[in-house]
Amino acid sequence: MDEALPPTRFDSLETPCLLLDADRMQANIVRLRSRLARLGVHLRPHLKTAKSIEVARVVTEGGTGPITVSTLKEAEYFVSHGFKDILYAVGITPNKLDHVFDLRRRGADLTILLDNLDSAKAVAAAARAAGDRLPVLIEIDCDGHRWGVQPGDTGRLVAIGRVLQDGGSALAGVMTHAGSSYDCRDEPSLVAVAEAERAAAVRAAEALRAAGLPCPAVSVGSTPTAFAARDLAGVTEVRAGVFVFFDLVMAGIGVCALDDVALSVLATVLGHQRDKGWIIVDAGWMAMSRDRGTARQPLDQGYGLVCDADGRPYADLIMIDANQEHGILAVRPGSAASCPDLPVGSSVRILPNHACATGAQHDRYHVVRGGDRHVHAVWQRFNGW
Amino acid sequence: MDEALPPTRFDSLETPCLLLDADRMQANIVRLRSRLARLGVHLRPHLKTAKSIEVARVVTEGGTGPITVSTLKEAEYFVSHGFKDILYAVGITPNKLDHVFDLRRRGADLTILLDNLDSAKAVAAAARAAGDRLPVLIEIDCDGHRWGVQPGDTGRLVAIGRVLQDGGSALAGVMTHAGSSYDCRDEPSLVAVAEAERAAAVRAAEALRAAGLPCPAVSVGSTPTAFAARDLAGVTEVRAGVFVFFDLVMAGIGVCALDDVALSVLATVLGHQRDKGWIIVDAGWMAMSRDRGTARQPLDQGYGLVCDADGRPYADLIMIDANQEHGILAVRPGSAASCPDLPVGSSVRILPNHACATGAQHDRYHVVRGGDRHVHAVWQRFNGW
Repeated sequence: MDEALPPTRFDSLETPCLLLDADRMQANIVRLRSRLARLGVHLRPHLKTAKSIEVARVVTEGGTGPITVSTLKEAEYFVSHGFKDILYAVGITPNKLDHVFDLRRRGADLTILLDNLDSAKAVAAAARAAGDRLPVLIEIDCDGHRWGVQPGDTGRLVAIGRVLQDGGSALAGVMTHAGSSYDCRDEPSLVAVAEAERAAAVRAAEALRAAGLPCPAVSVGSTPTAFAARDLAGVTEVRAGVFVFFDLVMAGIGVCALDDVALSVLATVLGHQRDKGWIIVDAGWMAMSRDRGTARQPLDQGYGLVCDADGRPYADLIMIDANQEHGILAVRPGSAASCPDLPVGSSVRILPNHACATGAQHDRYHVVRGGDRHVHAVWQRFNGW
Repeated sequence: MDEALPPTRFDSLETPCLLLDADRMQANIVRLRSRLARLGVHLRPHLKTAKSIEVARVVTEGGTGPITVSTLKEAEYFVSHGFKDILYAVGITPNKLDHVFDLRRRGADLTILLDNLDSAKAVAAAARAAGDRLPVLIEIDCDGHRWGVQPGDTGRLVAIGRVLQDGGSALAGVMTHAGSSYDCRDEPSLVAVAEAERAAAVRAAEALRAAGLPCPAVSVGSTPTAFAARDLAGVTEVRAGVFVFFDLVMAGIGVCALDDVALSVLATVLGHQRDKGWIIVDAGWMAMSRDRGTARQPLDQGYGLVCDADGRPYADLIMIDANQEHGILAVRPGSAASCPDLPVGSSVRILPNHACATGAQHDRYHVVRGGDRHVHAVWQRFNGW
């Protein structure tokens, strides 16, 4: 997997390709791990962002879990690399249960997720039939963002918990995800969302325990709240994924600096429309993804922020539009910055809006360390289901 | 590649997965081929949409070209399957020329593209050094959409043509792409854009010929203009890609009906937020792509239009929002339609905004024929560079 290379110069690479700055990644991981250690909770990194064994080994410090995944393909892959303690953090559907039991028979300590009584009944019955006390978390809705049981809906919560615990599976706890943290614009609102996330999970856990049900795991997390939480009393673990790489959306929220963003797309200038101030490169939306997450933020970064080949941002130079394999670079509308002179053949690095989305457009990471314009290794990643 | 199967029932598939209705695809291909035959021009299908040898064989009627590609990886793949006459229709960068010459040494009749004198000089010099009269098209800008030489800029056009033809490569002709056709809202504007596309390419070709240069190929195309053009006098070939599958953007433009859309994502209901009228499914933006192409159209389809498992659209039921692996289905805002009752475990098919973008999120097609809820074959596709 880790194809170690004699350092390869950028100018011998075919573009577009995905660069991963391993030094920045390492620093990002240390930063969150240190923070959570101070708060006394474990990290259960979400590997949906990286989908790579090399990244998984760095983020788990060479361990084999605990981890979070978003697909059973990720679970398969990490089980095949020796990981055991895996949370599949997307609501289960009946057509995936055979696969779940199969993974568990092969040694995975796989936990699943649901939020409703119909699913709980189906899961408990399947667990009973399989003779496997499958552990299940109940998802709690802390911010109206997606789904989950309302933390104050004790009746529904206890009913689901009892079906799971008494019906053949095992109630393993509760989890919640403050997706609304992505809409925060300042530190006080981030701190408030993090506390609401914690409080919702802890309240639900207490309601289950008060009803005589077990609730060992109290799992919370998103990258913004993981960095904003002031207190995690009652929480047992934090999930976060995008912090490994960071991206422009996270920088826009204020959770990281531009210099922390470890992922970029290397592209080459192929032409110009000089009267319009456009530079055309060979990375379009297929290489950047269609994610426009910064469009809702005060500073819209288009399809990405353009840096030189050493990773230094050009002032206000962004990808203003994209075709499938062409990107149009121009100075941000309203900026007084001048467009750099980048002749045909010039290399640029483009920072992505959303690391999960841009990463998924590529099948490997070209590993760089700082700005020496060399690739030191190639790490495979996978996609799909 | 073509993994023929005993027909597999939908309910035994793990979701999300990509469905391809082969009957609809076949009808779409016949429709465009018949149209172009009447207009007396060849089709050079763009395989960036499908990236699959099985689809390529259907669209080329079992032939081995001519085809268009958007990456050298596509060129590699189709060369390995016996295709020869290939146009790489993205502006060339110097770091790809070694690969281009290598493909040609291996038997590919590969043509490349550029729009500027610097690139022309670099290409001609490389061709001379390689002893290979590499054929090159000059891209013409017919609508200010991306890049290309202005059709009336005879000085620049002839200068590029002369460098190419006299410097070591071969001037193979001109090409243009009316990307602005995607913004059309009615038939008269589509017809006008198609005529402007034709006229720009023919005008440039005539200017080159008047200067004593060859211009054998006059290549135009986009799916909307391919269906709108009333006359293609002077044009030698039409490129189009998305017509093979069609999608909601094309339906919004009026180029196809919803019943022509051959691609859909099969998903499973995993829960509800009943007080909000939300149905939660296991296909999010990772399965649909982040493409929101219909957001600019009169009828915004969200992340996709929801159909039942047989492919019949529910009235105004769309994916209003998406997380990475969760989609939120709801009735379109303002609609009086009622939300269907879809219990946990129900299957839905979701039509995509943009076939190129949604296809690229998947590594295979599950081939269906009409609405019998069975998969008849699995066709691999590839992505990346």
